[in-house]
Amino acid sequence: MENDTTIRRLKIIEGHLRGVIRMVEEDTYCIDVIRQIQAVEAALNKVSTKILEDHLNSCVITAIQGPDKKERERVLKEIAEVFEMSTKV
Amino acid sequence: MENDTTIRRLKIIEGHLRGVIRMVEEDTYCIDVIRQIQAVEAALNKVSTKILEDHLNSCVITAIQGPDKKERERVLKEIAEVFEMSTKV
Amino acid sequence: MENDTTIRRLKIIEGHLRGVIRMVEEDTYCIDVIRQIQAVEAALNKVSTKILEDHLNSCVITAIQGPDKKERERVLKEIAEVFEMSTKV
Amino acid sequence: MENDTTIRRLKIIEGHLRGVIRMVEEDTYCIDVIRQIQAVEAALNKVSTKILEDHLNSCVITAIQGPDKKERERVLKEIAEVFEMSTKV
Repeated sequence: MENDTTIRRLKIIEGHLRGVIRMVEEDTYCIDVIRQIQAVEAALNKVSTKILEDHLNSCVITAIQGPDKKERERVLKEIAEVFEMSTKV
Repeated sequence: MENDTTIRRLKIIEGHLRGVIRMVEEDTYCIDVIRQIQAVEAALNKVSTKILEDHLNSCVITAIQGPDKKERERVLKEIAEVFEMSTKV
Repeated sequence: MENDTTIRRLKIIEGHLRGVIRMVEEDTYCIDVIRQIQAVEAALNKVSTKILEDHLNSCVITAIQGPDKKERERVLKEIAEVFEMSTKV
Repeated sequence: MENDTTIRRLKIIEGHLRGVIRMVEEDTYCIDVIRQIQAVEAALNKVSTKILEDHLNSCVITAIQGPDKKERERVLKEIAEVFEMSTKV
């Protein structure tokens, strides 16, 4: 169910990106192209956040309540990793 | 000419993004999806930088060497704006 | 214990930032100042990630294994929030 | 003149950062510390943008209107570089 929302949002972003390609093909003013690329990125950030939220409320809860310490550590390590990466893109 | 490179790169990113949509459709592990979205964003950042570089070496030089003070200010203001935005996405 | 490392790192960053202020006072070339500010931000991002990692391995585990559903939701919501914010700064 | 504003803003940020250190020393809740670090970064981004704006309106105009092609290229290359870096921190 959550997947449907994510897919729909990503398809909208894909359409947005195709619009950006068209802008470049039509020689649109560079700065306007950059602004649209930044808008695409902002939209992608929102989707990432939503996916992370769903992940926290499903897999992460299961892993942390589960008996496997290794699995728990793995799941938490991943979250720290995507957080770190998010500060870089 | 520079446009061709930009278009080619953006089309590769569009393919990457379609791959991400497929991942979600196939119920790929959330964290892997987030990582791919972050890769798409990193690629978009590179394209933005390239577009800005071309812009600086064409329109910006023309505007600054031109006689129109207003136009000069406008062009420089825009660069500061996309820079500021780039710290937010 | 983890706090000591965090404090030490933040104090190093504070020293770095004081260095940046000195650079501006001494009229250092703008671009070099911007680069040093970006280095300070990269260092702050690393500290944030480390704090989040410690937080995941302590409070978050406790909350998720605890009996209070509200508390669990609160803790997970916060993580999604700082993740979202991290895409913006 | 612009330097004074920059120095004043950076000193305020330094005070903010010292406040963050105090928060860690006093064992403040991790997420609140992360949020304050993010606020410090947002403030640094604003200062960077301001410095870049001043730089564009002084050095960059001088270089581009000047006779030295190499210098012109150097100055524009730097702007693209700090822009690229700004997408990463």
